[in-house]
Amino acid sequence: MAGMGSRELLVETMSELMWERGYADTSPRDVRERSGVGQGSMYHHFATKRDLAVAALERNVADLLPAAFEFDGPGDPMARIEAYLMRPRDALKGCKVGRMTQDRQVREDPVLLAPVARAFAQVHLSWVKVLREAVAAGELRSDLDPERLAHTLMAVLQGGYVLAIARQDPGPFDDARAGALDLLRAAAPSTPNGKNDKRE
Amino acid sequence: MAGMGSRELLVETMSELMWERGYADTSPRDVRERSGVGQGSMYHHFATKRDLAVAALERNVADLLPAAFEFDGPGDPMARIEAYLMRPRDALKGCKVGRMTQDRQVREDPVLLAPVARAFAQVHLSWVKVLREAVAAGELRSDLDPERLAHTLMAVLQGGYVLAIARQDPGPFDDARAGALDLLRAAAPSTPNGKNDKRE
Repeated sequence: MAGMGSRELLVETMSELMWERGYADTSPRDVRERSGVGQGSMYHHFATKRDLAVAALERNVADLLPAAFEFDGPGDPMARIEAYLMRPRDALKGCKVGRMTQDRQVREDPVLLAPVARAFAQVHLSWVKVLREAVAAGELRSDLDPERLAHTLMAVLQGGYVLAIARQDPGPFDDARAGALDLLRAAAPSTPNGKNDKRE
Repeated sequence: MAGMGSRELLVETMSELMWERGYADTSPRDVRERSGVGQGSMYHHFATKRDLAVAALERNVADLLPAAFEFDGPGDPMARIEAYLMRPRDALKGCKVGRMTQDRQVREDPVLLAPVARAFAQVHLSWVKVLREAVAAGELRSDLDPERLAHTLMAVLQGGYVLAIARQDPGPFDDARAGALDLLRAAAPSTPNGKNDKRE
């Protein structure tokens, strides 16, 4: 009866704790204390901390992906890029998924790293798609490589978190993404006064 | 007599272990075992693990900074930017300094975080300087903000490591930095056929 509820609660709590503290610093006992779920119920659902962590990582990935899928919506591609880059994010908390790469035990365990790698691969596909649309719409120069640029823009967000946490200030994160947008706009095929850059 | 030697050895070993495993996952015992320095000597030099970590962080910062100072050298600013962005880096090991922001105990301790914040502030200054030189040399559009762009380019490197570690492949790191260079070149004030972009 309370079965489903306690499983969900364990996954949710593990997800929060891994984001706050990382995998290594989270013990099964921490999860039980915060969730209020007992030891018997915990081991009924998850034989090991690692099994619980895989479920929590899948949950974090599921939380992250809908945001990237906004790219697939209608409207001007560059406006969708701007909306995705600039939407409110908690710079000092960092990315729920990206953070996991810095956790040694996650990084060194292919099973734990798999959901993280899969999430980044999917976000990359979404970025490539919207960047191709921006090129097709004449908003980005056609000699830019969308596959490459997709990694550049993903790195800006992931690295922006690192800078913000180092300085304990969201400013560098906001600078990093605004600067990326400035560069994308500077990479439009036409000059701001409307002349086309005819190089094709 | 062996005093200086063992202090250096402890700092070097702590620096390596913090890079490989992080602060939380490194015990004083790990440091003694790898360095071969005994417990008495260790506590003679460093009363606590935290004191040793501060010395190790200062060492990591000192290792990082000379690379940023290459920016101050002679020659074409954009060539120096390219050389710094593209120089060989171990993408799967990540940045010795940036990595520390992901370590909860470092992130939450102002004393441990201070050398990291200071290093990023200094690298930012170096980036701003070379980007201003690139604008002055007519290599970058004058409406781009060097302060902002400096954070974008720092984020590309820091975030590139995150992507590479997630995928266990240096490819996304190399893509991210090459894409940033493509964008910088696309943001030149003149078009490739030599016409000046007269917007000032």
